[in-house]
Amino acid sequence: MNKFFKSIEENYNAKGSCLCVGLDPEVAKMPERFRGSRTAIFDFLSIVVERTHDLACAFKPNMAFFESSGPEGLVQLQRLIGHIREVDPGIPIILDAKRGDIGNTAKHYAKAIFEVFAADGITVSPYMGADTVETFAAYSDKGIFALCLTSNPGYLDFENRDTGGEPLFIAVARRMAEIDRAGNIGLVVGATHPSEAEKVRAAAPDLPFLMPGIGAQGGDPSAIMRIGMTASGLPPIVNSSRGILFPEGEFPAACRTAALETRDLLNKYIR
Amino acid sequence: MNKFFKSIEENYNAKGSCLCVGLDPEVAKMPERFRGSRTAIFDFLSIVVERTHDLACAFKPNMAFFESSGPEGLVQLQRLIGHIREVDPGIPIILDAKRGDIGNTAKHYAKAIFEVFAADGITVSPYMGADTVETFAAYSDKGIFALCLTSNPGYLDFENRDTGGEPLFIAVARRMAEIDRAGNIGLVVGATHPSEAEKVRAAAPDLPFLMPGIGAQGGDPSAIMRIGMTASGLPPIVNSSRGILFPEGEFPAACRTAALETRDLLNKYIR
Repeated sequence: MNKFFKSIEENYNAKGSCLCVGLDPEVAKMPERFRGSRTAIFDFLSIVVERTHDLACAFKPNMAFFESSGPEGLVQLQRLIGHIREVDPGIPIILDAKRGDIGNTAKHYAKAIFEVFAADGITVSPYMGADTVETFAAYSDKGIFALCLTSNPGYLDFENRDTGGEPLFIAVARRMAEIDRAGNIGLVVGATHPSEAEKVRAAAPDLPFLMPGIGAQGGDPSAIMRIGMTASGLPPIVNSSRGILFPEGEFPAACRTAALETRDLLNKYIR
Repeated sequence: MNKFFKSIEENYNAKGSCLCVGLDPEVAKMPERFRGSRTAIFDFLSIVVERTHDLACAFKPNMAFFESSGPEGLVQLQRLIGHIREVDPGIPIILDAKRGDIGNTAKHYAKAIFEVFAADGITVSPYMGADTVETFAAYSDKGIFALCLTSNPGYLDFENRDTGGEPLFIAVARRMAEIDRAGNIGLVVGATHPSEAEKVRAAAPDLPFLMPGIGAQGGDPSAIMRIGMTASGLPPIVNSSRGILFPEGEFPAACRTAALETRDLLNKYIR
């Protein structure tokens, strides 16, 4: 395990939680008092961070929701990352960016994510091939999660296509395991397709899983915890975004309650 | 043809050029007088734009090279786009972003690219499925280029895998043609694999091609022009980045010379 995954494990052990809080700051869904301010994203998320960090093994801001506010959105992201470092210096931050490009271009994306925004992990898209992932994986202390089996209906279009007797997502899993020299590559495996996820686990027994799809998307926590664990016993990083950020009830108490309930629900199924 | 591709055609007809100038502002490669300034990206690229726009049917800034300068890089991108609009109001701007995500997240990326940065086109990654592309294609006036067959060696890993008797990139081409309701979807087809590119053209006779790989990457202009043309006669959008931005010789005269030579070289092979 590299530095990133060790830090996931330390957070897991210290907090008894494999919950990753997804930070998707949709301004229209925030309580009214936040909306309209230039700093709405930071103001809202900094409170979520304060109220949930001790219940989470990671935070995962999604770039799309910051970029849609332009350069100012990225300023808010930098402030947010700085705030997380102050509140909980040891918690890993995964930037959900789904980047994928070649050679020098990938190097610039990696620089943006790991140096400019100083994140600890990233999600990447494998479509263009292993060379697009290796540029990110060259940062051996960081965590690189390649899209593998995603939770949307469109996974049937390409991810699930048969290639020589196995679905493409299995070919992706195998190839990612092959190129994982620093022990810093993991897979994004949706929690909504348990039988397919099981095949991914069999193809890549020791690659850590980042599993979106619990909460709003309806993934089954028992399947997640059974399939998500690696052969060496690292539990999955289970992401919930909307379920934690925008639950029924009073903000921010309801966010903490939702995080607590999700953590405890997942823990029930740890073996 | 939608508004975006009509505008490509108008530029092509007016300027006799199917060259797309790729704007990949690598600060380390710029002439020394630009480096070290906070506004290096804008200062350098605004001159390139002024010296090449009348020889180009499109500009293609690559997001990676702006993001690696953080929020300030995106400010420079906005200034650059504003400058292009002033210098040549009719030229389409394709943001090379290779985004791909689901549902609401994709909507936020689309908002960033088409509303905040007000680009005319985007490159997207199809790995997660057609639903990830459709969110972008819902902007019916814009141009959406899905990664299909790319010019890097890693295209062998997944793009070229056999799926039921044809490579994955052909399945992508077919599916993109299927979902192209507004006539606004095109494909990214690398110029470095002519025989494979030919198969893509056969599978999707009328989808416009954005073709990187000429110049520094060594793509063959005769093959590009033969394969790149759509059934209805729209020529390919042929991208050159490094070859135009960083040629041998004095800046910016050498950039104009390189653009002129590339345009003329491509035109030799128009039938």
